[in-house]
Order: sequence, then structure tokens, then C-alpha cells
Amino acid sequence: MTTYEIILKKRNGKQLTKSEIEYLVSGYTQGTIPDYQFSAFLMAVFFQGMSFGEITALTEAMIRTGKIFDLSDITGFKIDKHSTGGVGDKVSLILAPLVAACGGINVPMVSGRGLGHTGGTLDKLESIPGFRTDLTENEFKKQLKKIGVAMMGQTKELAPADKKIYALRDITATVDSIPLIAASIMSKKLAEGIDGLVLDVKTGSGAFMRELNDANKLAKVMIEIGKRMGKIVVALITSMEQPLGNMIGNSIEVIESIECLKGNGPKDLMEVSIALSEEMLLMGNIVKTKEQARQLLANAINSGIALEKFRQLIKYQEGDERVIDNYNILPQAKYRIEVKSHKSGYIQKIDTLAMGLLSVELGCGRRTIDGKIDDSAGFILKKKIGDYIKKSELLVEVVGQDKNKVKTVSKKILSAYKIGKEKVKPPRSILQRM
Amino acid sequence: MTTYEIILKKRNGKQLTKSEIEYLVSGYTQGTIPDYQFSAFLMAVFFQGMSFGEITALTEAMIRTGKIFDLSDITGFKIDKHSTGGVGDKVSLILAPLVAACGGINVPMVSGRGLGHTGGTLDKLESIPGFRTDLTENEFKKQLKKIGVAMMGQTKELAPADKKIYALRDITATVDSIPLIAASIMSKKLAEGIDGLVLDVKTGSGAFMRELNDANKLAKVMIEIGKRMGKIVVALITSMEQPLGNMIGNSIEVIESIECLKGNGPKDLMEVSIALSEEMLLMGNIVKTKEQARQLLANAINSGIALEKFRQLIKYQEGDERVIDNYNILPQAKYRIEVKSHKSGYIQKIDTLAMGLLSVELGCGRRTIDGKIDDSAGFILKKKIGDYIKKSELLVEVVGQDKNKVKTVSKKILSAYKIGKEKVKPPRSILQRM
Repeated sequence: MTTYEIILKKRNGKQLTKSEIEYLVSGYTQGTIPDYQFSAFLMAVFFQGMSFGEITALTEAMIRTGKIFDLSDITGFKIDKHSTGGVGDKVSLILAPLVAACGGINVPMVSGRGLGHTGGTLDKLESIPGFRTDLTENEFKKQLKKIGVAMMGQTKELAPADKKIYALRDITATVDSIPLIAASIMSKKLAEGIDGLVLDVKTGSGAFMRELNDANKLAKVMIEIGKRMGKIVVALITSMEQPLGNMIGNSIEVIESIECLKGNGPKDLMEVSIALSEEMLLMGNIVKTKEQARQLLANAINSGIALEKFRQLIKYQEGDERVIDNYNILPQAKYRIEVKSHKSGYIQKIDTLAMGLLSVELGCGRRTIDGKIDDSAGFILKKKIGDYIKKSELLVEVVGQDKNKVKTVSKKILSAYKIGKEKVKPPRSILQRM
Repeated sequence: MTTYEIILKKRNGKQLTKSEIEYLVSGYTQGTIPDYQFSAFLMAVFFQGMSFGEITALTEAMIRTGKIFDLSDITGFKIDKHSTGGVGDKVSLILAPLVAACGGINVPMVSGRGLGHTGGTLDKLESIPGFRTDLTENEFKKQLKKIGVAMMGQTKELAPADKKIYALRDITATVDSIPLIAASIMSKKLAEGIDGLVLDVKTGSGAFMRELNDANKLAKVMIEIGKRMGKIVVALITSMEQPLGNMIGNSIEVIESIECLKGNGPKDLMEVSIALSEEMLLMGNIVKTKEQARQLLANAINSGIALEKFRQLIKYQEGDERVIDNYNILPQAKYRIEVKSHKSGYIQKIDTLAMGLLSVELGCGRRTIDGKIDDSAGFILKKKIGDYIKKSELLVEVVGQDKNKVKTVSKKILSAYKIGKEKVKPPRSILQRM
């Protein structure tokens, strides 16, 4: 068996064996298989696809290049949530403390940074002064044991193959391949040592899977991989036809998350956060029905224990927990420009990809690995799909530290909105449960 | 325009512009585009194909990475022949002196070495003691002017992109792509500064294009590229269902070629050599009809001027021209094993790929770039498809310097032959003219 023969086999549409996939992944990670062979293999996978068996083998091989967190001495279910990424998606910040506050479920969450036009949980958390996401495995486990929730960044030990393969896919036009996306997500998540996983697969104008059909396929594949590896996986397909909630940015998304935990969250964001939280409670057998889950979650918010759990989380991870009561502790924007509507009508569409890209241009995300972030920057949306706006009424507030960027970006905002006379319904938040 | 965008465009089945192709090829040759991006591009081309316009642009871009031989001060047509490669294919050694001997046409031939299971013209010529194939451009032109024929190896200056791209294709399973094969052949050939080209596209069990349909496609593409670049190109599709002639090896193929020029050549080999030579004479307007061409070629052989041209060629390239009359000057095999038929019947099939691979195993070809060749080694075929053989009658003689190899290989020969009761016709040598 040579690398050449394996590439040829996949190119010709044949199914690879477990050991062939293992050979490729371990060889590539260790550096014995060169980039140029692996990229040819990735392109062949793009065209020929992979069976469930192959994707599972790929996921397992990727996990085996690193270590698996051993969470066996932590009692109770260990359940994580993963989102395929969107604009304004701060669900993790709400859901992690909320579910942990309900008791009985541990939420060991390993998150990522902003990718392309989408924001990243780590970037948001790190806008809280002092907040550390670079926990060691030991710190992570200790915290999980004590407070039932911990949120950290990817380490070098967790599925290192994924980092190397992702970097190669990113420059060889092989990112948007469902088998490769599924294996990438699942290898990172299952290396956390979890029992179950709730997936938030986004679809729509701001999602990587723009078409419902593709989102559906991806969800199916990830559920099947999980099953084959003995994990419970549930997926919700949720809408990314418009940004989630009203805030896009880092520190302002922290504020919006805290507001959610205080019971003041916007409808769409709460719907998605609650629906995913419900799945976790059901999966962990904390409740028997959706209604019970909903009640438990409402109680956790109303009683303030969810908010307290977030405060605890921030404190444990060395962040300034006073942020819960005082948003002035967060980085503050110096400049603020109000973008007003150029006509009256209903908001019919929001080009969410464009909004995401504009947020990166404004400084909310990185364009290169070492790029600097403006934690204070962002958009505050005053109207969303289905809302009526009058001419010259406020549509979006653009905020940030960099005067020029705030100015430039605010001029481009209107082109992402389609405003018309015909009334439209807001998109449904939850499209499908799988 | 970035490399990433060009890969993505091709991957998505869109047509690339001339400048995008130029950017890729020059960037890759100069080293500014890395292997791993170029290999992903090659795999995308394998799946999505290329239009005639794209293949022409690719060929032109590959030529532009080097220099084009300037043969403008040589009077008369400059016509070369190219074969896609086969087993026992020594046509170049016969055709080049034969056509040059007819006068009026210059044959500037840049050839290659053995590739995979096929033999190479350079390896064969170099079995003649002293024969130099590493001519400089100047030597090549000077000789062409004086004797109308010169045969040399690929230089670093001729389409250097091809060498680099071929090496990458060879290890990324992207060799058998018609656009890439066509551009590779045409870039090397058209960089010779020729006016016209006769292609020998092989098909059958010993050819790279096993199916007639693929050979046909490849020929069509090469003819079209030639046309778009203002060159006359004619293709014959010829059979590689069995080795061409009766000799496979280096020095023994030189002997068989000399025998052909002496008028003693085997039927199939002569048919192919004459047919291709006819095309060159017609292309160069030396004759008006096929019959005239045939007569002229027969005269050149019968009168001995073709043989004298070969002698002259050998002498000019510093080889020992006494070989023409004394085959003992060539490297002689030490060992000889006779492989006899295990049963009586008709030779129905010869697995020509297997024969080629066995010849490489015996030492006729290289397995690695630096591999050593046994010039004396080879197979002498006593029976070919359609012939009747009696049990224990001689089928193949295996010769070489290495006792073990001769022994091992001779044991495997029979499995490449299918002998049966039913009589079969020998395959036609020339299948199609395009």
C-alpha cells in the first residue's frame, strides 16, 4: 500500500479501507506524507465523496493523532454543543451556563475562533477582561468537576490532524466537502471525551451550508458518525437567513448573552438557545419531555441561577465577573455611526454573508491568523426581517475604535439589506430536528 | 486573481482564462505556487477536464517557461514524429533516418527515456557504444543542417514546466488525464520549433490508452491544439495489442531497427514505420500520393541510403557506426533462457503491459530515475498473435547479464500469453488515421 495507490483508489471512486485511511492521516500528521499528495487526495474526496464507514474511519484516525480527554471520573453526563458557524451566533455563551445551571449535565466545551465571515466563541469570551481560554486539560477537568461547565480553546493535543488538514483545505479549495467538514467537526468534538453532542447546523445566506439540503446531508453524516462511535448525537437545523439576535461583534455579543440570561433576550436568539438546551437536557435524561425541559430552563433564567453560573464561569476562568452587572468593564467603542434607511418598507432580506464579511472588515474578526481584533467593534441591528422601517429611521448602529473603518463599513451596510413594499414573515428559527 | 480562486474555479467546472492558466504554470515553474496547490489543481482538472482553448493555453504557457528552438535558418520542412509509448516500439530509430534519407524533410527529434512499462528511444540509442544524446541546441541545429536528422534528449530549456508538472502528476495519481497528457506532449514537441508533427497514438493492452475511444480523444485534442498553434498535425492510431516487432530491449531493438533498414523487418513493425513515414513525406509535400510515398520509402531502403543515413546519424552523434555491420559491438547478453510453450495452439492474446513490466524487471528499463539499465537484456519473440505453436516449441528467448533476473523473469513469461485452440487473426497494425 502506497500513498499513490490510495489516492488513485479514491480518485477512481473506490472505497478506502480503515487501514488505508489511518495510514494517510497518521502519515500526513507526522509529516511522512507530503502536502502535495494529501491535497490531491482531498480534491479526490471532494469529487468522489466518502461512505459513512470511510468518514467514521477518517474521524477516528484524526482523533488518534492526538489524545482524548479522559472525563471518566466526572460524574454525570458530559454533553457539548457545536454550531457550524454563523453571524451573531453567541448561543454557546448562553447555553453553556444555562444547561450547567440546571444541574446533572456537565458542559465541556472546546470552541474555536472566528472563521471566514463567522464569529468565534473564544474571541467573544476573550473580550471579557482577564478571561482565559487557554486552559490546560487539568484545569479544564477540575473546573468541570467543580462547576459543571468549562470553555476552552482547541489544544495541540486534541486531534492535531484536524488543524493541519484544515489549513491545507483552506488553500486548496477543498473546504466545502461534507465528508471533510463532518470529520473535522466530529474529530475535535469526540476527542473531548463527551457522551453526547447536540449539533446546531446552520443554513441560509450567512451559513457555510447555504442550502437546506446540504445542511441536512451534513447533519445526517455527523449523526451517523457519532452513532458508529457509540455517541448520542442530535442535530437541529437552524436558520442563518439573518444574523442571530441583534448584536454582531465581540464585547457587544457578550452583553447580549448576559441580557439573555437575565431574561431580556431577543426572540430568535432565545428560541435557538432554548431549543438546543432542551436537547441537552433530554439527552442527559434530566427531563422526560420537552415541556419539562422548557420549564426547567425558564426557571434557571427567572431564578437567576443561569446568570450566576455564567458569573461563576467567568470567575473560574480569571475574567472580571463584575461584567455581569457593569458592561462598562468591557472594551468600549469610541465611534458610533447610525445607518438609516433610505426608504420606507419591510425588511425582506439580509445578506448575512455580507454582514459577516463587513463585521470582519470592521475589526470583529481576523483576516489572517495573527490579525488584531477590535473587541469593541460591531453592529447593533435595530430592524430584522419582517420589520417595517420608515425612511430615515435607524437601521443599524456601527460601532468601533477605528474611525475610518466605522465610516467605511457604515457606508456599505445598506447594500446588504433588501427593503420593499411587500410584507414578509420573519424566517423560522428552527427548521428541522434530526 | 489568486491561486486559490483559480483552483476553485476549475473545481467548480468553470473555464479558466488564458491569463489564469499562464499565472498558474509560470508561478508553479518558478516556485511561487507551491506543489500542494498545483496538485489540487491537477486533480480538479482530472475531474473537470479542459476545453480546447484551455489545453492550448496550457500548452503555450508550458512552452513559454522555456525556450523554443529556432530552426528558421534550416531550409525545408521540419517534421517530427511522436509516439505515446509502447512495448517494442523502436519506430523512431527506423523512421528518422528513413525519412531524412528521402531528402527535403528535416527530422529534429527530441525523445524521452523509458516510462513505466514502455521503452525509450534514448535508452535504445545509448546502447550503441559512444552514442551521445545530450546534444546542445547548437550541435542539434548544426547536425540537422548537415544531415537532415538529429536525435537528442529533452533539455532543461525545452518546456521546463513539463518536467516539473510531470513529476508531480506521477506521484499524485493525475497522469491519466487527456488534457494533461496532450499538453505535456505538445509543449515538448512544439518547443522544438517544428512545422508539423505526426503522432503515433497507441491503443491496446500495452498502451497508456488501452481503449480505442480514449486514444481517439487524445489524438483529437492534440490535433486541435496543433491547429490552434498554427502547426500541421496528423495522427495514426496504431495497435499495441502485442509488442511491436519481435525484439524488446535496448541493444536488441537497435539490431531489429538496423534489420528493418536493411529490408528484413517484421511485418507489423514495418507497416507502422512506413505508414508514419508516409505521413511525414505527404505533410512535407515531398510526394503527392501515398503510393508515391510508399515507392520513395521502398527505394530508400532497397538502395541502402536509409541505412547509410542511420550510419551517418550514429557517426555524427559519436556512436560506433560499425554497429551497422557488426552487432557484436553492442552489449552482449551473458545468459539466455528459452521459454517453451506448455501446450499446442494458437497465440490468441499477449498481455503487453505485463511483457513491458517484465522487461523492466529484467533490466531493460528503470524503476527509479537513477536506476541502472542492462542494455543487453530483453525478449526475442518467436511467435506472435495468430501464430500456431506446438507444445515445447520455442516461444520467447529471455536474455540478459543478470542470471537471477533472466531466470526469474523467464518463469513469468508464459502467464502473459493466452494460447488456445481457436485460430485468431493478428491485430491490424493501423487502426485509424486522423
